[in-house]
This record gives sequence, structure tokens and C-alpha cells, in this order.
Amino acid sequence: MKEINRYKSVIAYHGSGFSGYQVQPNKRTVQLEIERVLTTINKSDTKIVSSGRTDAGVHAHGQVIHFDSELLLNGQEWCCALNAMLPEDIVAKSVERVKLDFHARYDVTQKEYRYVVQQVIVRDPFSRHLVAQVRQTLDIEKMQEAAHQLVGKHDFSSFCAANTSVVDKVRTVIAIDIRELAGARIEFRVIGTGFLYNMVRIIVGTLLEIGTGKRTVDEMGVILEAKDRTIAGKTAPAQGLYLWEVRYIE
Amino acid sequence: MKEINRYKSVIAYHGSGFSGYQVQPNKRTVQLEIERVLTTINKSDTKIVSSGRTDAGVHAHGQVIHFDSELLLNGQEWCCALNAMLPEDIVAKSVERVKLDFHARYDVTQKEYRYVVQQVIVRDPFSRHLVAQVRQTLDIEKMQEAAHQLVGKHDFSSFCAANTSVVDKVRTVIAIDIRELAGARIEFRVIGTGFLYNMVRIIVGTLLEIGTGKRTVDEMGVILEAKDRTIAGKTAPAQGLYLWEVRYIE
Repeated sequence: MKEINRYKSVIAYHGSGFSGYQVQPNKRTVQLEIERVLTTINKSDTKIVSSGRTDAGVHAHGQVIHFDSELLLNGQEWCCALNAMLPEDIVAKSVERVKLDFHARYDVTQKEYRYVVQQVIVRDPFSRHLVAQVRQTLDIEKMQEAAHQLVGKHDFSSFCAANTSVVDKVRTVIAIDIRELAGARIEFRVIGTGFLYNMVRIIVGTLLEIGTGKRTVDEMGVILEAKDRTIAGKTAPAQGLYLWEVRYIE
Repeated sequence: MKEINRYKSVIAYHGSGFSGYQVQPNKRTVQLEIERVLTTINKSDTKIVSSGRTDAGVHAHGQVIHFDSELLLNGQEWCCALNAMLPEDIVAKSVERVKLDFHARYDVTQKEYRYVVQQVIVRDPFSRHLVAQVRQTLDIEKMQEAAHQLVGKHDFSSFCAANTSVVDKVRTVIAIDIRELAGARIEFRVIGTGFLYNMVRIIVGTLLEIGTGKRTVDEMGVILEAKDRTIAGKTAPAQGLYLWEVRYIE
């Protein structure tokens, strides 16, 4: 019997063409496409494990997966093989051999999400799958001030989709930074040790309502305290969200 | 009988979802989508005239059309009405009432095309419909030097798709500028009084072969002189091309 090798891979994907990351019957998903290619390369049924799922339309700049293979290839060989066979909306950015006990989900220490909003006068047909477009001008200072109230260890029940089975809703947000990019774009960077379902999109949706003046800065603390999803803002649309980076124990 | 008004409109579209600009049976085209919306607004069959067609996958940042209507609306009213009904990959950027003898195709004095190339190590799934991606590093100075040889009034037979019925292939190129953008992107700006079929894409395709060192700078003059399409470089892919601006007599 041949030796088994475990590989960690950083992948990027454009989420618009997928019904999310996770395999679902009769749907095109990221996991399905990657497992199909790896099964061909390995010549045996191969499953992958990711750092976590992403929703339909959500992008990944740096999703991390692991998989096992009897093949002993270096990173460049794996990337060439994978990228030659993967569809155009998924790319393997790196592959490295790791210890057999590495686990792409259990070993995560931090995740960074980014959310990009473009302030437009008329809608921009070129960025519609890559950013969320808003007609209003956003007050970055107010949003940053409100965002600070979320940093730390809190019960984020107000920022968790109602249809979830998770019981413990305490999470730690390490940082939320908001900065202007070129082209009237604003980028929200949210770093945490873990996130609840739709948490980043509900945080951003609430910050956008503060940024447009629909809500005050002080409401953020009230929303956090309420531990009630119905009090927070709308869930921001999927197409602005990027799973940017997943960090592991060194 | 009501008075007829003529309107000039600047439109933008993301070309990937269309089988080009011009109406074709059983195909989704830009012209078809706009005429369908205008016919609804005008409550009578409405045709549009553009500055010229664009191919499948080619984008427009500033295509110009004209249409007639009995309605007397201001620019903002037209834009609101159009953008509420147009699909997400087309947007009306401006509409203005013009003289009845204005013609979006016959009155063109200059057109500007832009072509965007992104130098990548691994392919970028986020920009694949918006730029052409190349693996090699491009020598901008060499491409600029070669491009200068095309400026002026020339027979551009070498830079015209073979399957065209146009007889006179003399055109005037006013400027070709090549500059670096952020994100390892290079933008080619080509301004002329008129263009042959695929002319910009063949010019860029040839410049790319010079930029990667596959051809020398001096070959450009030889190619122009040859008046033979088979001598020039490959037609650069559609997704990097933008009809950027159309200019008219003031």
C-alpha cells in the first residue's frame, strides 16, 4: 500500500457561478468542482475539507482546503495539474504538503473577510458581481466609530442569521477596519477567530445603515446588547463579500 | 399627430452576456434589450441606431445610440425609466435631446477604444471577463515604440479580419497610448476616426507579441506595409476590449 500525503491548498473563486461552496444535489458548487478534478488526478474518489463553507455568490480570495493523495508532487506541479482542469472561476493559488494531522477547519485560528461597497450614481455593469453598489455617500468615520463597538468577545446573536442551529453565539472580533479604495469603493476588513452564519454580511449591512445616516452610531451598542437578529440591519448582498484569508497555528 | 423628438444616449454594457451588439435571430444582444425597453416606454415599436456594432464579449464604457420618441422627458427622467427596466449588464449613463438630423453612426468624428491586459502568475478568476490575462511580463516601451508606427493615415489591411466586405481599408489612427494601471494591468488606448473589423484587437494582439519578445519592434512597419492579415499577430480576446468613447461634431 502506498503512503498517503496530506496537502493544504489556498484557492480563490468567483462566487457568482456557484450555489455556494458546499456540495448539494444537482447544484454547481465549488467543492463539487474541486473534488471532481482531484478524483481524476488521484484516480480514486477524493474528498476535500475546507476552512468553512461560503454562501452562493460569496467570493474567496484565500479559502483553504486540505485533501489526501498517494501522489507525491510539489506545489507547482499540483497547481499546474489543478489549474489545467479546474473551471475558469476557481484557481489553486498554492499547494503545500502538510502533516497528516493538519485539518483545514479545526486548526483555523483566524479568518479575515473583506466586503467591498461601491458608491455609484448610476449602477456599474462591470462590477455588479464583484461589489455591492450603493447610491448614497457613506460616512466612513461614523461607520468606523460604530464598528469599534463590535471589537472584542461578545454574544453576536443580533448578527447571526435566524435560521441557524448554533447554540453558542459568543465570538471574538479582532478588528474591523474601513478604508477607501480607488473608484469610489469602500472596503470593510473584518478579522475574527470565528464567525456565525451571515455575521459579516449583517455587520456590514448594519454599518451601511449607519453610514447613510439611517441609524445613529450609538445604535450599534444597543443592537449588540439586544441579542436579537430583528434589531440589526439588513444582510448585505453576497456579491460584496470575500473570504480573504484563513490563518492557522504556525 | 404628436411631435417627434430625437434623443442621444450614452450607454455602457458588460459584453460577456451578449452575442454582440447587433440584433440576431434567437440571440441575446444589446440592441434587442434596449429596443425592447424603449418599445415598452414609447408604447410603439422603437428602433435604435448605434455608433457601430461591437462583437460578442466586447464591452462598452461609452457606446452612443440615438432613438426617436413622442415623449418629451429630460435626461434624468429618461435614465431613470431606462435603468429601471434594462437588465443589470446594460446601463444608460446619459440621455439628451438632440436635433432631428443627429445620427449616431454617420456623425461620428472619433472613437476611442481601450484594451486592458493583466499580467498574472496564476489566472485571476475575478477579472476573467473584464481583461485579457497574460502570463508573460510585457515590455511597455517596445510596444509603445511599435505602436507609434501605426499612427497616421494608412492602409490597415493587415489589421482587418479577413472575412469583411469593406473595400477601402485606409483609416486614420490618431493616437495609441500604452500605460500601466494598478494591479499589474496595462491599458492600450487607441483613438481613430474609424476602425476596420477587429482592427483594435489585431493591433493589440500584434503589440502583445512584440511586448513578450516574440516579434521585434521593427516588424510592425513590415506588417503594416504587407497589407496582409496573415502577417500580423493573433486577434486579442474580446473580453479585454472596451468601446470607451465616441465623439461627434460639436
